Amino acid sequence: MSDDNRFGLARHVRLPGPLALDGGASLAAIDVGYETYGTLNADRSNAILICHALTGDQHAASNHPRTGKPGWWQRMIGPGKPVDPARHCVICINVLGSCMGSTGPASVDPDTGSAYAMRFPVITIRDMVRAQALLLDHLGIPRLRAVIGGSMGGMQALSWAATFPERVQAAVVIASTARHSAQNIAFHEVGRQAVMADPRWAGGDYYDGDAPTAGLAVARMAAHITYLSEAGLTHKFGRRLQAREAKSFGFDADFQVESYLRHQGITFVDRFDANSYLYITRAMDYFDLAEEHGGRLADAFRRTATRFCLVSFDTDWLYPTRESRAIVQALNAAGAPVSFVELSSPFGHDSFLLDAPEMNRVVDGFLRAGE
Amino acid sequence: MSDDNRFGLARHVRLPGPLALDGGASLAAIDVGYETYGTLNADRSNAILICHALTGDQHAASNHPRTGKPGWWQRMIGPGKPVDPARHCVICINVLGSCMGSTGPASVDPDTGSAYAMRFPVITIRDMVRAQALLLDHLGIPRLRAVIGGSMGGMQALSWAATFPERVQAAVVIASTARHSAQNIAFHEVGRQAVMADPRWAGGDYYDGDAPTAGLAVARMAAHITYLSEAGLTHKFGRRLQAREAKSFGFDADFQVESYLRHQGITFVDRFDANSYLYITRAMDYFDLAEEHGGRLADAFRRTATRFCLVSFDTDWLYPTRESRAIVQALNAAGAPVSFVELSSPFGHDSFLLDAPEMNRVVDGFLRAGE
Repeated sequence: MSDDNRFGLARHVRLPGPLALDGGASLAAIDVGYETYGTLNADRSNAILICHALTGDQHAASNHPRTGKPGWWQRMIGPGKPVDPARHCVICINVLGSCMGSTGPASVDPDTGSAYAMRFPVITIRDMVRAQALLLDHLGIPRLRAVIGGSMGGMQALSWAATFPERVQAAVVIASTARHSAQNIAFHEVGRQAVMADPRWAGGDYYDGDAPTAGLAVARMAAHITYLSEAGLTHKFGRRLQAREAKSFGFDADFQVESYLRHQGITFVDRFDANSYLYITRAMDYFDLAEEHGGRLADAFRRTATRFCLVSFDTDWLYPTRESRAIVQALNAAGAPVSFVELSSPFGHDSFLLDAPEMNRVVDGFLRAGE
Repeated sequence: MSDDNRFGLARHVRLPGPLALDGGASLAAIDVGYETYGTLNADRSNAILICHALTGDQHAASNHPRTGKPGWWQRMIGPGKPVDPARHCVICINVLGSCMGSTGPASVDPDTGSAYAMRFPVITIRDMVRAQALLLDHLGIPRLRAVIGGSMGGMQALSWAATFPERVQAAVVIASTARHSAQNIAFHEVGRQAVMADPRWAGGDYYDGDAPTAGLAVARMAAHITYLSEAGLTHKFGRRLQAREAKSFGFDADFQVESYLRHQGITFVDRFDANSYLYITRAMDYFDLAEEHGGRLADAFRRTATRFCLVSFDTDWLYPTRESRAIVQALNAAGAPVSFVELSSPFGHDSFLLDAPEMNRVVDGFLRAGE
């Protein structure tokens, strides 16, 4: 990679397959959308992979091409930040199944010439990781200095360490879990049913017409509540009314929290594909790292040479601290070096995306200790 | 009332209005569906009002006329139970705005000859209580031995004590709150948006066609998650798969929790009106007993002569124990007699509807102490 990507370069490549998937199907070729920051050093040892969450993308530290908004992890990546393009070659890859340049249900199926839609194979977190490994092969990156992710990004980081232990020097797993709980699955199922209940979804074949934006917005609203803490919602909105001074005794958004949620739903559908939402939530629900290794989580890390750093947030009720602790215990049982901290934040699961100086200090110290 | 209602008698009455509503509108006349168990004694002092929750009904201790299922609180009401028709004249009233015999959006608007639909006025918990008071007037019941309710039923019990302090000897408030939090409102808003996103909802005018069952089912699924605890869901379902032995790598209900949730959604729409769901959730979101009394909850009970009993459940995250505690503190500040207990149960908010011997002992002891 040349110097011109020091400040972020959006890239795209088509990689030859076949990519064999956990579900038994395979993809003949895959598109991969990704972005890089910084330069790979001479001995190819300074690459850091950033893994994004469910509705994230490869634009971690640059403006989103559709919304124009700043990258979702500019607080973590940048000059003087824990992940610094001056020291690191940073790569962020749109996950398989998503809709920002990587192959997913909205992509054209080469066998039919039209969108895969629901004919796209169901994928797993490990499939996403395998696709990422193909890209690293293509880029000539044998080994990662670190793989870092929050939420579903943390699942990928765990899966990387379990699937390609020799390629991962260090893994940072933030606000994440080694398996989806019944409640996690339940919330995702509500979202999927909301999408599928929208007549415009049409069995997934909506690409030539109107997208199921109403259903997808409802799905996003339900999910968004789980990203915030009860206390955070109370602090941010409480029972405060919109600009009007009194209740309307109607069904407009009287409360600020209603208006906020509706806004979350409406803006989301402009940047995300409904079928991708179905596939990625399914991959997350299927995620159970212990199950992939005979039922014992420690066995997922039996061959590991990776150093681990786990971070949880005390108000995260989507992936509570006990989920991180279970991972730490498994790593201990496997003899893997691991540091773990629960940070205090009022903002629930979304804390990892927000201003969290302690998180940055933890990640910075952990990365420097290995450099 | 005569002896023939000892084992439950479904009743219905049209009461002359006008019933003035908090929103400024009024209803010229109201239908009230209710059920009674037991006999009013000579001095009319043994009446107990049971208040139902959001999707409940008047059939607290008798089979539901549509589903055939046992009454929702047969564990609390019946021979030898805390509320005993042998001692008490038990009355359970379908709330205003609902769809089981009381006036609501599905009722015919006398002014137009067709269903109110969204032309029904937005109502409050206090409006429901006022309608119940009209029925008690009609039945010649000046004063209640007790008003008892869980969840939204608890809100009504609180509102009864605040609105008609001279008519309520005792109030039992279970798994409830004195105001809806931002998170409570957020979940309800998701449900309302799910209903309204269903094209069949048609602005509420669906009574001559197909009801918005898909949207209402999604709303119910989202709400149902909040009625259960994370631990309860894990205990009941965990990540267990349906009968099939392996994941389907498709979008059928692979996990038991998915199948369970879908069933909750599908069965709900057979017994409930979507517009009623909108109106009653709105009433709950508007509920803020302190706000109705100048912003200080204790002032809601300034004139009270009511004895109170509060019960919360430790795994209820919809209306957590701290909400009950806030009510107890306000009652203490108002000098009202109150007993309070937090019970341990793995089942979250729904615990009050399940087998809870401790809850029954608490309610039984509280009622007997006043008899």
